[in-house]
This record gives sequence, C-alpha cells and structure tokens, in this order.
Amino acid sequence: MTSPKLDPELLLARWARTLQSSALQDMLSAATKPGIVSFALGLPAPELFPSAGLAEAAAHVVSTDLQALQYNPPFNALKTHVVKLMALRGVKCTERQIFLTAGAQQGLNLLTRLLLDPGGGVLLEELAYPGFQQVIEPYLPEKWLVPTDPQTGMDVVAVERLLSRGFRPAFIYAIADGHNPMAVSMSLKKRELLVSLARSYSIPIIEDDPYGFLYYSDKPLPPLRSFDENWVFYLGSFSKILAPSLRAGWVVAPEALLPKLGTVKEASDINAAPLSHRIIAAYLDSCDIEQRLAMLRREYDKRRRRMVDVLREQFPASARWEEPSTGIFVWVELDNNVNTSELLREALEKERVAFIPGNAFSVNGEQGKNCMRLNFSNVSEPLIEDGIGRLGRILDRASSLV
Amino acid sequence: MTSPKLDPELLLARWARTLQSSALQDMLSAATKPGIVSFALGLPAPELFPSAGLAEAAAHVVSTDLQALQYNPPFNALKTHVVKLMALRGVKCTERQIFLTAGAQQGLNLLTRLLLDPGGGVLLEELAYPGFQQVIEPYLPEKWLVPTDPQTGMDVVAVERLLSRGFRPAFIYAIADGHNPMAVSMSLKKRELLVSLARSYSIPIIEDDPYGFLYYSDKPLPPLRSFDENWVFYLGSFSKILAPSLRAGWVVAPEALLPKLGTVKEASDINAAPLSHRIIAAYLDSCDIEQRLAMLRREYDKRRRRMVDVLREQFPASARWEEPSTGIFVWVELDNNVNTSELLREALEKERVAFIPGNAFSVNGEQGKNCMRLNFSNVSEPLIEDGIGRLGRILDRASSLV
Repeated sequence: MTSPKLDPELLLARWARTLQSSALQDMLSAATKPGIVSFALGLPAPELFPSAGLAEAAAHVVSTDLQALQYNPPFNALKTHVVKLMALRGVKCTERQIFLTAGAQQGLNLLTRLLLDPGGGVLLEELAYPGFQQVIEPYLPEKWLVPTDPQTGMDVVAVERLLSRGFRPAFIYAIADGHNPMAVSMSLKKRELLVSLARSYSIPIIEDDPYGFLYYSDKPLPPLRSFDENWVFYLGSFSKILAPSLRAGWVVAPEALLPKLGTVKEASDINAAPLSHRIIAAYLDSCDIEQRLAMLRREYDKRRRRMVDVLREQFPASARWEEPSTGIFVWVELDNNVNTSELLREALEKERVAFIPGNAFSVNGEQGKNCMRLNFSNVSEPLIEDGIGRLGRILDRASSLV
Repeated sequence: MTSPKLDPELLLARWARTLQSSALQDMLSAATKPGIVSFALGLPAPELFPSAGLAEAAAHVVSTDLQALQYNPPFNALKTHVVKLMALRGVKCTERQIFLTAGAQQGLNLLTRLLLDPGGGVLLEELAYPGFQQVIEPYLPEKWLVPTDPQTGMDVVAVERLLSRGFRPAFIYAIADGHNPMAVSMSLKKRELLVSLARSYSIPIIEDDPYGFLYYSDKPLPPLRSFDENWVFYLGSFSKILAPSLRAGWVVAPEALLPKLGTVKEASDINAAPLSHRIIAAYLDSCDIEQRLAMLRREYDKRRRRMVDVLREQFPASARWEEPSTGIFVWVELDNNVNTSELLREALEKERVAFIPGNAFSVNGEQGKNCMRLNFSNVSEPLIEDGIGRLGRILDRASSLV
C-alpha cells in the first residue's frame, strides 16, 4: 500500500502553518563557518567554562549515587544554592519560592503557559528578545508595544498610558539589566515606577535576567524582583555564569504559584530532577561562586572596554552607542539611510564578519533597521579589534556610496 | 508600600485556574516513604543503571571538549546511534527523520503544540497515560475516547467508527507496546488496521514507545512506525534503557516536520544540545547496547515472572490479569465491587504497600475503579513476593467484608 504524501501544512495547528525558519537563521548558520569573526550570537566564552570542576562533579555524582540517575523530585540542595545566588543579586527569597528549570527559556515558556490565554494580550517592547516572541506565538496573542530608550530602558510612561486606558495584558515582559537586544539597563526610577504599576493594576511582570550577574559598575541596580515579591516573577539562568549545555535555570515566584509551575513542567518534561542539577549543586558545593563571578565580570569587562574603544576608533562619527553597564552586547545605531540587513550580507561575503541586524528583533518589523547588535563575550580582544575594524571598513564604503 | 496579596487563580489562563495537584499525587508521595513496598510508579531499576560507563563518559566529554559545554546545534552523533536503535526495533529511518528531545514527554508536548489547536479534538483511549492527559489539558480539547481490550489493545474498530462518522481529531494517541496503564501490546491485525485508518483519513498517529525495547517474547511485534513513515510519529526514550535523569529521548517523524519541531523546541528550551546528549553518545560509542538491552530484558523478565506467579498464589481466584509481553506493568482487574482507590488507603496504612488505582488513569473518571496497575521493574524479587502477599491479605479481608 503506498502512503499518501503527507503535507505538514495541512496537519498543523493554525498558528504553526505559517511557521518558517527565518532568512536570518540561515545567514547565521553561515556565520558559524570557520574564519568568520562573529559578533552575532549571545554566547559565553568557552575558555571561561569551569570544565575541570564540572567534570569532577559529574564523575562524582554519577559514580557515587545510583539515585542520581533515577527519576527524582526537584533537587532541593540546588535551590539552597540559588537562594544564595539571589542574595548576591540583592534579592531576598526562600527555597519555597524557587522553581528549578531546564534554563531560563523553559521558565519563560512555563510561565507563559500558566498566564496567557489563546488570543490574550502581552505587553512588551518594540525591540524584544526573539526567543520570547517565539514563546508567545502559538497563542496568537495581542501584542501591546512600548518603545525603549537607549539610555534608560523601557518606556514605562508608555506602559502606564496603556494600562490607564484599560489595556489588561496577561503580563509585562521586561529585561531590566543588560537588555537584549538594546544592551541598556533600566533606570532606578523606571524600575520603581514599573513595579508600582504592576501592583496597582495587578498585572505580573516576568523579569528575564540571564545577564544580571555580569555587571561592570561598582553599584549595580537591584532587579525588579527586589522591589516586590508578589508581582515580579524572576527568571535566572546558569548558562552565562556556568555553562549553557547544562540546561539549567530557575524561577523565583510567589509560593502559591509553584505547584502550578510543577504541573506544567510535568507535562513538558516530567519535572524530574535532571542529572545536570545535581552536577551543578556538587560543583557549587566545592567552589567559591563569588570569586568565579568576579572573574567573569573582570574578563568580560576587558572585552567590553575593547569593543567600545575600537568602535570609537573605527566606526563613522555618526554612529551612536551607549557603554553597557551590564550584559554581553553593544547596540549600535547608524545613519538612518543604512540598512543593516543588507549590510550583513556584504559583511559576511566581503569581510567575513557577522552581527545581528537590529530589525531582526523588531516585533512588528518596523524598528531597528539602521541598528546592529554586537556581542563581545564570545570574541577575544584581538578578534574584537580585527572584526570591528572590518565592519568599520564596510561602513566607510557604504557611506561613500550614499 | 504594601503589596496587594496575589491571588494566582485570578491571574492564570482559563485552563489553569482549576489546576490542582491530585489526591493521588499526595498519596503517592506517601508511597515513597521508607518501609513501603511500592508497585506504584513506573521506575526502572537503579541497580541496572550503567553508572560506571556513564560516569566515565561524562568526565571524558566535559574535560576533553570545551565546546561540549557551549550552546550547540542538536548533536548528530547521537542521531546516528538512534538510527541503529530504531533498526533493532524493526524501524528503518535516517538521521534526517530523527529529532532529539529532553525525553519522550517533551516529544509528546512539542508534537501536540504543533498539531493541536485550542479546542481541537484528540482521539485516545478511555484509560490513558496521565502525562499525556496533562499535555493536552491546556488546549481544553475535545476528547474522543475508545476502549482498550486487555488482550489485544486499543479498540481499533471503535476508532474506525468515529472516523467514518466524520470525527477528525488532530491526531490519535497510541502506545502499541507495553501499554500504560493496561500493560497490553496491540495485536498485529489491529496495528495494521490502525495505520491504514491513519493513512485513509490523513490523521497522524503519535506512537509513544517508552517500553518497546523491554519485550519478553522471542518475536516482538514491530511498532506502528514500521508500517508507515508518513503518518506515524514515533516517540522514543533513553529513560528506561539507560537512565531517566539524563532526560533524553527522540522523535522519528517525516523530514518535513523537523524544522517545525526545531522551532517549537527553541521556544521551549532553546533547542541547544544538552550535555547529556553528548554523554549518551560517548557512552554508546564504547558500549554494546544490544548486550545491555538483552541484560535488561533478562532481569526484568525474572521480576515479571515472579510477579505473575505470586499473583496466582496470593490473589483471589476472581482476579484477572494478562501476562504482559512487553513493558514494566501488570494490570489487575478485581471483583466489580472492589474500589481500588479505597483499597490503596488501607494498603498504605495497614500493609505499607502501594500501587496505582486504575481509576487514576481514566480520562472521564468512569473506568478502572476495580483495577490496579502494578509495576515490577523497580521491585526486587523478594520484595515482589512480600508486597504481593501483603496486597493479597488486604484483598482477602476486603472480600470477607463484602
């Protein structure tokens, strides 16, 4: 019997029928080819991974405890470590408010599943983390957008305007520190106002904080969660402070929400403690995490400074950027007539250098056309100098053609 | 400023408002207390985990390759191992049809997200794996139910009747081998008919196969996927053949579906290769998996035989069960007047022995009230003898009270 040819488009749920891998994705896979200097992805530096410590922890955990390989409830010893980490971020919480995940992205996905109805509303910025846009897409949601100021972050007055007009999103999505893609950290005043709006209107904030430990000033601002334990649901990650392939993160949420999170995680992946959670706990038992975080800040700060210095030397005088106080990106705004999507093609072909065009982050496709996001955490200082120089040449050529 | 008390019920998406951890869950956490003989959960035997091999593989992978800790695309070397495993199951497929997951449960969740619209229809059995019921719950789906025969499996004629009347589910959910909870394996005739229905009506089947490698007959039947590569989406798992906390599994699906699965997994957990995928590949590189599978079948078969023997000796003559040819469960049907949910309470309190009452698997709450699911894979032979004896005493007492 011959089987009729399957047409996936006909089978799929409505939202998924138009789902496509983006042209950007294809271009980025080109960016991983050898010889390309890539400022594109938000990767940590592999040479800073604690591989010896993790290898030892992994061998120890697997060989000394058979139960470590079994289905097990969420691993409490790791929650205790997370409570200590959160204290370093200026957040008071208890183990009963910690929910362990397979990374911050999973936390985002589970919270959205709990909070968002199909066709419901979400409040986010015009330029937003694409992984968050992917999370909400299956709900075919209404998206209420606010702009982002490159120096002070999310336009919280615009948030207030929407709420006062009666808009009631399921939640507000925010990255207060080291914004992705705009690299900005929200001003203290805006933090306070945003949290007070959440409280007044009873709208929760999902605070995505993958970069919060990577700050470069003496006095980092406290995350939104430090201002309110009820209305801010915080997402943390081990990807940037230990290693991404461990796939481990956490949510800090009101205790009442944790059983519900447990149930949606059960449906996602059984909610059994993965081996990596035990490996991380064993590693943290025997390591000075404060020392490690200080080392990461020191090393990434060197790259950050180098990038900003070289931008100043090599980029046209009309280009604008802010020195990021947290995170792993620099956001560069070029002349209005520069189209960075076209520029990327040329940069890859002629100078073998990659970045992400700002427009790739635009929720409605309108913003960021003359902008680029540059990552510095995964590029060595000499390569930063080399790659930014190459980009500068492309820009010179582009502007001489105008 | 005092924060208004958050009432999670008010915030949550509609489907999640009534979400509760079940009374069963609470009882089961009682079942994990020391001194309890538990036939309740579907756990593999920890003493059969390949801990030495996995410890070595883990230490090797982490300490020799920095990139193993980085964000990486899905790990192709593991796909090659999966193709070989599928050949052992009688399924021909290529790496391009293999999608790697964080376990079969994640595969189930991702496929459902791709296929099911909110309020859409699903065809499943009256007694079904609760983890699947959890997956579809957020869609508030229509559930079309068919019965299951304890000797031949899913009532495929009832499936045909529904489809011929015009019911068009997004997909059919099936466990052809070692059914959970009913322990039955579908007859060859039913397999052929079910797959031909899927083809004729263009309705995909999700074949959940966590136990398929654990068969106890010389000639196991081929899985549904072996009859059709277009209309059967197969879910495999390393949890029962290696170890659950690795959180690793796979989907075998038409190549056209894989980019879409990649996109929904990206939204779930970034779809970066987790460390465990590399550890498993390294372990499989250096191990004879056929030998390991034969060892598991041999050991679990001893427990299975022992359970069936002791049931014959210790359970009332009116109790009925089939010897399972695959999997890790025995399904026992008792007199109609026995309520196994009440029995469980007594069994835990008086005899310190646990099982899952059949009704816990019932989709509409009607079936299985006089049934119990007994797991044998996670109980040693002496404890099987002891625990089934205790259960027999409870049943004797219960029937003497009737």
